[in-house]
Amino acid sequence: MSNNIASKIDHTNLKAEARRPQIHRLVSEAQEYGFASVCVNGVFVADCAKALANSSVKTCAVAGFPLGAMKATHKAIEATGLVKDGAQEIDVVAHLPNLIRKDVAAIKDELMEVVKAVRAANPQVIVKVIVESACLMQEVDDAEAEARIAAACQAVRESGCDFIKTSTGFHSAGGATVEAVRLMKKHSQGIYVKAAGGIRTADDAQRMIDAGADRLGCSAGVAIVTGQSAGGAGY
Amino acid sequence: MSNNIASKIDHTNLKAEARRPQIHRLVSEAQEYGFASVCVNGVFVADCAKALANSSVKTCAVAGFPLGAMKATHKAIEATGLVKDGAQEIDVVAHLPNLIRKDVAAIKDELMEVVKAVRAANPQVIVKVIVESACLMQEVDDAEAEARIAAACQAVRESGCDFIKTSTGFHSAGGATVEAVRLMKKHSQGIYVKAAGGIRTADDAQRMIDAGADRLGCSAGVAIVTGQSAGGAGY
Repeated sequence: MSNNIASKIDHTNLKAEARRPQIHRLVSEAQEYGFASVCVNGVFVADCAKALANSSVKTCAVAGFPLGAMKATHKAIEATGLVKDGAQEIDVVAHLPNLIRKDVAAIKDELMEVVKAVRAANPQVIVKVIVESACLMQEVDDAEAEARIAAACQAVRESGCDFIKTSTGFHSAGGATVEAVRLMKKHSQGIYVKAAGGIRTADDAQRMIDAGADRLGCSAGVAIVTGQSAGGAGY
Repeated sequence: MSNNIASKIDHTNLKAEARRPQIHRLVSEAQEYGFASVCVNGVFVADCAKALANSSVKTCAVAGFPLGAMKATHKAIEATGLVKDGAQEIDVVAHLPNLIRKDVAAIKDELMEVVKAVRAANPQVIVKVIVESACLMQEVDDAEAEARIAAACQAVRESGCDFIKTSTGFHSAGGATVEAVRLMKKHSQGIYVKAAGGIRTADDAQRMIDAGADRLGCSAGVAIVTGQSAGGAGY
């Protein structure tokens, strides 16, 4: 699998201070290395989609990011607007308290509002749901951690979303872990798993793939596929 | 001034995992201690506004938070929706690259789209603009740091917003500093200054007020006014 890592990478720059030239470089690198997508904030989506119009590299946009504490209605409006700007994939943050409570109905209600709106704009859009697994799994025993991940997987699956994604890369509890990815894979039953947050090296990437990740979100994609070392936050 | 600190505090809980009981406690404490407002994420605004309907404590909501890299249109829609839910104050994050480039016209364009929309919903809404001063002022000399703050103040003032606010409390560059507040006050010329991020003690609060802060955003408001020590992120 490792010779195909590039095609699993969402090449990501979600920094608040990211400027247009850095986003243009992200787009160029994604085309050069054959990454799955570029993953950017809303302001850059139209630009990226235009630059990638004749490319196999997708434009991935975040919504309700990174706190997930925006109203569902506003997440849906934001995501739909970004799809109209050309986003082919939407990474949306679920409201964490619903996940912590394992309230599958509430998680589904929120996600279905988003997914219904974006699919009305483009039925082919891929929706990934970020659940901040490091936050969900902290300060609870293994059984409760697994129950939370299982409930999240169920809600993501039953709402018609495509991926469960570990982390925003911005939460103080941390990013992707092998254990979170392994649990997500175990309970995925038809949805895909994206690992993101703190994946900085080829070894990190391979461990996540071995644990079951179908996609990787990272800012260090070039370093990962070329074997160079990289700095940065790793999301 | 110190005996009136409570009336300057936006009592704040913006954590992604904040749950309803914690927000209810925030509301109770704000009423008990006479804080200026409660500052919360979008999902909690309608609840807070209802609970505070007959109170002098305002409901303050964040928009485009914390990255400020959402499209201006979506910030405006989000902010307007929250005003309709009862928010009397909106703390919106400006797009940082415009601030870094000192592009006053671009900053104003973005802010005026937000302010026009929210004032159409309620002409009395207070709008505060978060500029991540720690990010703006890092890795540049004193003259450039001051020029960036001055440009930000000009844009906030000319767009008709009410406050310039230092920080989200979520940026890795840090929160409010005395120097940032002092520069904001120097260049404010009619707008108010809100210090937020890392204000954890009565001493922190007094230093910010002495530097020119008209409002303080903090999660440690109770500790600040009672003299207790507090943990937490300080935003």
